[in-house]
Amino acid sequence: MDVLGVLNLGEIAQYFSKMAMFPVFDLAYYVVSILYLKYEPGSVEVSRRSPVASWLCAMLYCFGSYILADIMLGDSPIDYFHNNSHILLATAVWYLIFFCPLNLFYKCVTILPIKLVLVAMKEVVRTRKIAAGVHHAHHAYHHGWFIMVITGYVKGSGVALMSNFEQLLRGVWRPETNEILNMSFPTKASLYGAILFTLQEAHWLPLSKSTLICLFTLFMATSKVFLTARHSHGSPLALIESWVCHLLFGSPLGSSEDSHDHHHAAPVAAAPASPTKTKEELNEGTRKRKSKKAE
Amino acid sequence: MDVLGVLNLGEIAQYFSKMAMFPVFDLAYYVVSILYLKYEPGSVEVSRRSPVASWLCAMLYCFGSYILADIMLGDSPIDYFHNNSHILLATAVWYLIFFCPLNLFYKCVTILPIKLVLVAMKEVVRTRKIAAGVHHAHHAYHHGWFIMVITGYVKGSGVALMSNFEQLLRGVWRPETNEILNMSFPTKASLYGAILFTLQEAHWLPLSKSTLICLFTLFMATSKVFLTARHSHGSPLALIESWVCHLLFGSPLGSSEDSHDHHHAAPVAAAPASPTKTKEELNEGTRKRKSKKAE
Amino acid sequence: MDVLGVLNLGEIAQYFSKMAMFPVFDLAYYVVSILYLKYEPGSVEVSRRSPVASWLCAMLYCFGSYILADIMLGDSPIDYFHNNSHILLATAVWYLIFFCPLNLFYKCVTILPIKLVLVAMKEVVRTRKIAAGVHHAHHAYHHGWFIMVITGYVKGSGVALMSNFEQLLRGVWRPETNEILNMSFPTKASLYGAILFTLQEAHWLPLSKSTLICLFTLFMATSKVFLTARHSHGSPLALIESWVCHLLFGSPLGSSEDSHDHHHAAPVAAAPASPTKTKEELNEGTRKRKSKKAE
Repeated sequence: MDVLGVLNLGEIAQYFSKMAMFPVFDLAYYVVSILYLKYEPGSVEVSRRSPVASWLCAMLYCFGSYILADIMLGDSPIDYFHNNSHILLATAVWYLIFFCPLNLFYKCVTILPIKLVLVAMKEVVRTRKIAAGVHHAHHAYHHGWFIMVITGYVKGSGVALMSNFEQLLRGVWRPETNEILNMSFPTKASLYGAILFTLQEAHWLPLSKSTLICLFTLFMATSKVFLTARHSHGSPLALIESWVCHLLFGSPLGSSEDSHDHHHAAPVAAAPASPTKTKEELNEGTRKRKSKKAE
Repeated sequence: MDVLGVLNLGEIAQYFSKMAMFPVFDLAYYVVSILYLKYEPGSVEVSRRSPVASWLCAMLYCFGSYILADIMLGDSPIDYFHNNSHILLATAVWYLIFFCPLNLFYKCVTILPIKLVLVAMKEVVRTRKIAAGVHHAHHAYHHGWFIMVITGYVKGSGVALMSNFEQLLRGVWRPETNEILNMSFPTKASLYGAILFTLQEAHWLPLSKSTLICLFTLFMATSKVFLTARHSHGSPLALIESWVCHLLFGSPLGSSEDSHDHHHAAPVAAAPASPTKTKEELNEGTRKRKSKKAE
Repeated sequence: MDVLGVLNLGEIAQYFSKMAMFPVFDLAYYVVSILYLKYEPGSVEVSRRSPVASWLCAMLYCFGSYILADIMLGDSPIDYFHNNSHILLATAVWYLIFFCPLNLFYKCVTILPIKLVLVAMKEVVRTRKIAAGVHHAHHAYHHGWFIMVITGYVKGSGVALMSNFEQLLRGVWRPETNEILNMSFPTKASLYGAILFTLQEAHWLPLSKSTLICLFTLFMATSKVFLTARHSHGSPLALIESWVCHLLFGSPLGSSEDSHDHHHAAPVAAAPASPTKTKEELNEGTRKRKSKKAE
């Protein structure tokens, strides 16, 4: 009882929000990110034919959020690459996932319980990145609320927002869809998170930043673990989104993910029905099938 | 007579070139720009399916010139987004044009006399942007004449120069053409304007800057109003351009827009005959048909 | 004997590595670069239809390495354009190669002995650019080894690394391949050069910088002259690369360029067999055929 009394929730949140991410959490982030790269069709062949292209893609998966945020704020896009140890760690993970003998490393980290822990740890890093992005933008533009949201958003979404160009690097080009046209759950959640952290930074939210980090991490980790465990690609917020979009933008009821009728009724040049499945959804859904092929 | 005596032309030009653009002229700029976005095939469907993508496109249409100029000069591409009031105004216009009940706002602003006034006001803003772009680049690179022309050019042309990527955001990909291969009149005029303002900045033109702003605005506004009223997509300078290109580059006589024979005689992989119609031409030409569909 | 005694190798290297590149060597660089542009299918038609697009492409071919390096280090991408004399010289070369009466200039510079000299001079400039890129990055990020390699690499490879987007400017889009997926010899050699110069900058190589510049220039010039003379598109390092890739990444033996069997055995969406021929190879290989057409 004493311990609980001393460590009240605020202090736990404070401690949690100050916890170092490198190397353990960052490692989990790299592993899960590069796993998603390996799930992409054709990525294993690319790694054999052109290791440089494969390595670059892996770096985009691991550090895409830093690259995008640096571009947005007018800094050098490869600024983060001066952290040699981070790059070396990510390179080691890339090598182990793609070239480990007997595919041993890949087999280990895709065991479901291990993967769920790694996925949860990745969400811890994602939340911290959003908070750091908003804070960084706040430092540069004191009242630039839009800049803060955009920076937090790209810090949370990372490579997803530049998936078209990441695919192009691997010789794949799918112009009919992109992550903004068909947002996956992590991308949407990053947007909401960036808005929340911006409101907090503007003191319009009656919460300390550490508490918000704690709560948002909890929400993200729980959602993502649940979705990964069920191989699902829905969104816990689909119902709310659907109603808000209906009210504000006259979108037909039923989330855009499920509205196959809508797509059939109004076929646009922009999007055939299939690409509505976003990248991460495909990853989750076809994990089993592809992991076979990947060996 | 007294008033005319006091307000001589130089002073009018001076006053005109100092006039604030925000909010009235900028508002007109946003309205006309987002109108052009709504004319794009599929853009209304995108606004229903993914309001975020539609909003981003609208922002590119309104602030593309600032984004491009910031990129060119190595600043943060979203630097202009710290002007919260500008962004909010453009967002309101976007909402009204795409989601207003009964499509009321759209119907109002597309009444021809109103639209002609708005189009003229947009050209006032465009000229000011070119002048500001050249001046800004002159400040950063004192003798960088090429940089001054390029910066003024992108400030005048705005989203047109990145239309391929703006389309990609909406899931449309037309690699066979782009605004530099097939320049529309505003893009060409922006280039000429940027050259003129650079010459002025270099003191090779016997004109004050305010007089040049006045004259160029007059030329642009008159041309654009005339073209819009006639739903035409020619260029008042086609004849001169045609002769200059013939003399300098051996281009066949007859402006590139009309030279269908040339295209048939030498079919290149680069460009089938149809995409020679540029974006704005298509907009103007098919306005009627599409405005129906847009509702 | 006296002269040889005084001018020992170190001093020659010193003198060579300090020699000014402008205007003679830079001129050779521009001529060879814009020749490669003219070899591209459709580029002559583009120069007639849209001189602005053709000029922009020529500038990318001549200054792509500066543009990319400036982007990588977060500077203005058109920063180099403040060197008016360089731009004017490149513009003159572009005009002479594309629009010279009777195609005289083109015919002169493509005479094999002249071309071989120009190609050798281009490699002198390339090596100096790599060294300068690594040095510049070292200045900005003292221990950023990855940044140094990347900057040296883009300085050496130039337009090749952005060939997809350079092609897009001319209305051509080939997403199924790119310079990183299928590196040509100059791109690969630039990567190795960047690594060597980074090792030198980190004092892990027992060589002075001027000696390294000398040796690397010799290697590049010899290789490139030999390849150009034989219209070959192999790589003198293919055997070593093949073994290293086999050991490290389990790539099948036989360089990726020649492994047609591999491609047939494992057809990926990413790359049909034909695009393995890279841009420069195509240029060399089909030079004769196209130079006819170009007139």
